[in-house]
Amino acid sequence: MMKRSWVLSRPLYPTPVALITSISPEGKPNIITLAEVFMPCVRDPLTIGLAINPTRYSNSLIRATGEFVVNIPTDDMVRIVDYCGTVSGRDVDKFKMTGLTPEVAVKVKPPMIKECPVSIECRLKQVTPIGYHDFFMGEGLAVHVDETILNENKIDMNKAKPLVYNLGEYWTCGTLIGKHGFTHGKF
Amino acid sequence: MMKRSWVLSRPLYPTPVALITSISPEGKPNIITLAEVFMPCVRDPLTIGLAINPTRYSNSLIRATGEFVVNIPTDDMVRIVDYCGTVSGRDVDKFKMTGLTPEVAVKVKPPMIKECPVSIECRLKQVTPIGYHDFFMGEGLAVHVDETILNENKIDMNKAKPLVYNLGEYWTCGTLIGKHGFTHGKF
Repeated sequence: MMKRSWVLSRPLYPTPVALITSISPEGKPNIITLAEVFMPCVRDPLTIGLAINPTRYSNSLIRATGEFVVNIPTDDMVRIVDYCGTVSGRDVDKFKMTGLTPEVAVKVKPPMIKECPVSIECRLKQVTPIGYHDFFMGEGLAVHVDETILNENKIDMNKAKPLVYNLGEYWTCGTLIGKHGFTHGKF
Repeated sequence: MMKRSWVLSRPLYPTPVALITSISPEGKPNIITLAEVFMPCVRDPLTIGLAINPTRYSNSLIRATGEFVVNIPTDDMVRIVDYCGTVSGRDVDKFKMTGLTPEVAVKVKPPMIKECPVSIECRLKQVTPIGYHDFFMGEGLAVHVDETILNENKIDMNKAKPLVYNLGEYWTCGTLIGKHGFTHGKF
């Protein structure tokens, strides 16, 4: 092994892929695909961070309404995921084009996406411009999970089938090779 | 499909797994495994976000020295990854216990990990306490990539073999099913 210095626009992998729903003040919903989604805090309060370029339509919608929903797709939705990340909601109605089904959320106005097994309703708390991106932090107000992916109250990843984003590539998950704590602190 | 409300400590998946190296003011290096790592900005400047519980040893080291390195492991390092996430550097020397090889970094004092094919040197810019976690933002000063995982100047994910973290489970990556832009904006 021999490392060399490298210029990489995205050096971190893998990253989660999510479909973020937002809504215009007039009530028109939109979807954007993001692979820069993050949990700066997992509880008290659950916090979700998003990085969105200032030129994107969803950036202006989330700023205007202060609300968004993080929807986690399955790997068989890869065409939808790519499409929603490459066209603008200024030009097309992505719900109409993709056939995705909007579901009424409980605490916020943007719809959830029915075909995504997990949806996290969020209220915007802070926007921090950082260079090329705006960094949005939202508080998670409600989490919805599709019952069909649950196994004794835990998400079964063989059913959730998450998509993995690897520096511009969409991958499926392979196999389970360990669970947190399986080494029991011994090496 | 029928969604139900759910209490989830970690509703977002998959998340990247990284080994974060830091160093004490006296020069003793440490490693912590994190699955909450993020890029709030991918360029100008490359920014890396980390969420670390205030009780963790690495939290105090990064605060004290203002530097850290993000090292991305391969899936065959899963035992090391779990071990480094379940014991404290206050009690054990994780480099010694795991046999990982420290490599001198170029711009910061914490070492890189030779066995990880990608290392990102970072300087701390900001710490924001958010509930249960502290949210660290660092600027990426240098990126190092192992030549053996490159294919015509791009990372070959079949060689990088990233580990995927799915709500407490370690998974391998499966198969490549698309590249960003493959739908060419058509549905």
